[in-house]
Amino acid sequence: MSIIDEVVSNNRKYASSFKLGRLPMPPARRLAVLACMDARLTLEPMLGVNTGDAHIIRNAGGVATDDALRSLIISCHLLGTREFMVINHTDCGMLTFSDAELEGRLRSSLGPSSVGPTQFHSFKDPSENVRAQIQRIQSHPWIPKDIAVRGFVYDVKTGNLQEVTMPALR
Amino acid sequence: MSIIDEVVSNNRKYASSFKLGRLPMPPARRLAVLACMDARLTLEPMLGVNTGDAHIIRNAGGVATDDALRSLIISCHLLGTREFMVINHTDCGMLTFSDAELEGRLRSSLGPSSVGPTQFHSFKDPSENVRAQIQRIQSHPWIPKDIAVRGFVYDVKTGNLQEVTMPALR
Repeated sequence: MSIIDEVVSNNRKYASSFKLGRLPMPPARRLAVLACMDARLTLEPMLGVNTGDAHIIRNAGGVATDDALRSLIISCHLLGTREFMVINHTDCGMLTFSDAELEGRLRSSLGPSSVGPTQFHSFKDPSENVRAQIQRIQSHPWIPKDIAVRGFVYDVKTGNLQEVTMPALR
Repeated sequence: MSIIDEVVSNNRKYASSFKLGRLPMPPARRLAVLACMDARLTLEPMLGVNTGDAHIIRNAGGVATDDALRSLIISCHLLGTREFMVINHTDCGMLTFSDAELEGRLRSSLGPSSVGPTQFHSFKDPSENVRAQIQRIQSHPWIPKDIAVRGFVYDVKTGNLQEVTMPALR
């Protein structure tokens, strides 16, 4: 049996006892989270939030790409979120390759791609990467200046979130 | 107290009873899910998967943007996933606006943006949108042809996943 057949069967059980059918569209806690896609991050229990509380945006790395910015802009302007969290983590797959290596490997095995992605956004240090994403979000002209943007590194060995401090402005 | 302060405090409790510190990086069930960021979707219980089982990629709409394709390419080529699920849902915020309206509103209130996004990916029909995303994923030159790609619409009123059928090829 494919894993997708299995999860569809699991979903029948979930739906049979479902009691959350009246939640409204806007996130109750006015929070949006941008995190890595890593399978070891289960955001709602990690953060102690409930279904309906927060937008959750995830991609390889937890990077504020144009697409993540698109999602954050929709989140705050159309659905009222007021605080953004960026979450990277230890032992991330994005630390294990370079963009040039991966692109070379894909080109040699599968040929060129004309449709993107043009960057893979690998990085070498999760804390540094989080700082860069916060700066990218805060400097975007379409992100309101009064939105709180804070960043964290999640330790996959301990379950602990560590806040990343930003350098003081001079 | 800000909601971020509150979730950091919640995380201290999560970490204090954390027992998942030895999970490996590759997803155990070799599954990657691309879903909407909507706060009413809590993917792991909805699908009956555990922490460590699946990559979870989320953006506004559950759209196979270049960035989502980047994440899917990394997921299968570097971390061994073999099945992809695309999940859109009923009552999606992306059904409530047009790209031109939103861009006009942001430009008039906040000025132009030179850094993207260039599209917001609003849509009118979740099933049609899911079909388009499946086709976009399957036709990408860097997505292996033997990866199963299936799409679903999640009903936020019932908790039920409905598979989207693809038109038969002639």
